Amino acid sequence: MKKEEFTGLLEERAKEAERIVLSYLPKGEGPQAKVYESMAYSLESGGKRLRPLLMLESYRLFSQGQKEEWVHPFMAAMEMIHTYSLIHDDLPEMDDDDLRRGRPTCHKVYGQAMALLAGDGLLNLAFETTAEAMLKAAASIPNGDNITTEKDDASTDPIQSLSRMAKANQILAEKAGTKGMLGGQVADVEGEKKTDLSMENILFIHEKKTAALLQAALMIGGILGGATPEETGRLEKAGYDIGLAFQIRDDILDVIGDQETFGKPIGSDAKNEKNTYVSLIGVQKAEEEVIRLSDEAKKELSALPGDHAFLEELIDWMTVREK
Amino acid sequence: MKKEEFTGLLEERAKEAERIVLSYLPKGEGPQAKVYESMAYSLESGGKRLRPLLMLESYRLFSQGQKEEWVHPFMAAMEMIHTYSLIHDDLPEMDDDDLRRGRPTCHKVYGQAMALLAGDGLLNLAFETTAEAMLKAAASIPNGDNITTEKDDASTDPIQSLSRMAKANQILAEKAGTKGMLGGQVADVEGEKKTDLSMENILFIHEKKTAALLQAALMIGGILGGATPEETGRLEKAGYDIGLAFQIRDDILDVIGDQETFGKPIGSDAKNEKNTYVSLIGVQKAEEEVIRLSDEAKKELSALPGDHAFLEELIDWMTVREK
Repeated sequence: MKKEEFTGLLEERAKEAERIVLSYLPKGEGPQAKVYESMAYSLESGGKRLRPLLMLESYRLFSQGQKEEWVHPFMAAMEMIHTYSLIHDDLPEMDDDDLRRGRPTCHKVYGQAMALLAGDGLLNLAFETTAEAMLKAAASIPNGDNITTEKDDASTDPIQSLSRMAKANQILAEKAGTKGMLGGQVADVEGEKKTDLSMENILFIHEKKTAALLQAALMIGGILGGATPEETGRLEKAGYDIGLAFQIRDDILDVIGDQETFGKPIGSDAKNEKNTYVSLIGVQKAEEEVIRLSDEAKKELSALPGDHAFLEELIDWMTVREK
Repeated sequence: MKKEEFTGLLEERAKEAERIVLSYLPKGEGPQAKVYESMAYSLESGGKRLRPLLMLESYRLFSQGQKEEWVHPFMAAMEMIHTYSLIHDDLPEMDDDDLRRGRPTCHKVYGQAMALLAGDGLLNLAFETTAEAMLKAAASIPNGDNITTEKDDASTDPIQSLSRMAKANQILAEKAGTKGMLGGQVADVEGEKKTDLSMENILFIHEKKTAALLQAALMIGGILGGATPEETGRLEKAGYDIGLAFQIRDDILDVIGDQETFGKPIGSDAKNEKNTYVSLIGVQKAEEEVIRLSDEAKKELSALPGDHAFLEELIDWMTVREK
């Protein structure tokens, strides 16, 4: 795939993912209207929608023409969870950031209390969205007393669909929670207190804070599409590799990038005198590790069905990217 | 039921509910240990566990000896959501409270960042807990290709169980989110800016912030136990009545109570010069309304199956209570 072809496809599919995600955003009047506004402000400020995009691509590897509507609510839930974590991460008691992707952060626009509630609202809405999807699947199951073995279309078996959603929902909750992303945030906050983070600490934080949701995105897409447990395991491994490479690359760019191409103050970690992956092993070795991890991820994908040309390019773009 | 008998039963069942709720609390080592500690600190500081207690009682009205394990994860999830809302409500950007039930609030003990994450962690864990329960139910469904109409025990039909859980989970998410409790918190925060709250505003806040979770508790118990939609509607109505009466009673106690019996600074709302239900219509009329609502709730219950003697006493205790 040529670079221009990939860039065009990425643009197109990111827009598609964004359109799907935003369609799940409730619009509300009444006394709670402000929270809908603040939730929408942050959800609409998204970047490339990498997590829902990865989920959709992973789904398509396995789905063989099954309904795509099944994966849409999970794409939205994933991006809501990512967005809530950014809103809470930016709060004064956390990173105290005024800007996010070049726009004022949620609490700078809506105040600290409303940003807290907007984050809570998005986390809740994520599980409300998957709950609605599961309820819809459950409602299409024939009454427990009327179940038959006859199915005219195996690919839309509602029981199978509900079972897959239950698994996907469990992965989402686990990877977002204290065993996943949130656990990484906690370790990060705890790590702020010391400047001498060990490599083990740093890897833990990157795995949980960054890789966990990428793993969930790939795994959920696979599970909903019909991946076997072995295939789901490969997706989990690939998500780990991509997440780690993505984050190490971020550390590298923080050192060598410039503000214009990266959009955040240069060397902000260095200013805080915090150990990073790069400060511990150096730029050269870190770059080698990014390439190794990116290759590992692509190796896992190569054992999966479907067309993964775009996914492979996407991995390169996410990890070996210049900006 | 004699007063002493009720008091003894309440003590016993509150302990039972607490034991069930706390059994779902993860204990963790490692870099994220602090968040488990802070989540446990707040979850263990609970009062009478009214929400899980109401859920269990409601379940028992309908369950006719079905497995009680089905309702346990939902009881835990309910209390986790209630607790997260208290932690975030106490934060400096919200009510800035130092004490909760006589103990230092989560952020006073663990700091503001960790309290933020502990709240996030409990909200996430709530849906992780129901997700695990649904996954377990899904896993016990025979493979989609092997479904038969034969069931040796209708009361443990795994498909019916999963369908009910999907409905219960959707109610939980909806009543906790922007259409429910969180919407009430937003309206409350917005209301802080003005002292001339209308009765309509106050009722909205009480309905969403207080009644929504009580409604969910009763409805989820009923749904998991096998309540019909009509019966679930009665539970929703009863939850509204109880929630409103509970909150008006709270406003009344805030005016006439004394610090010793109620455990929070007297007249704290009056000090903030905020309209309350009681300041708008007076103590006398407010007390009449509490009795009317409490009677309405009991009337709804009287149309439901099972033994509701304890539930009726509980409603009185929650609404017409002296402390």
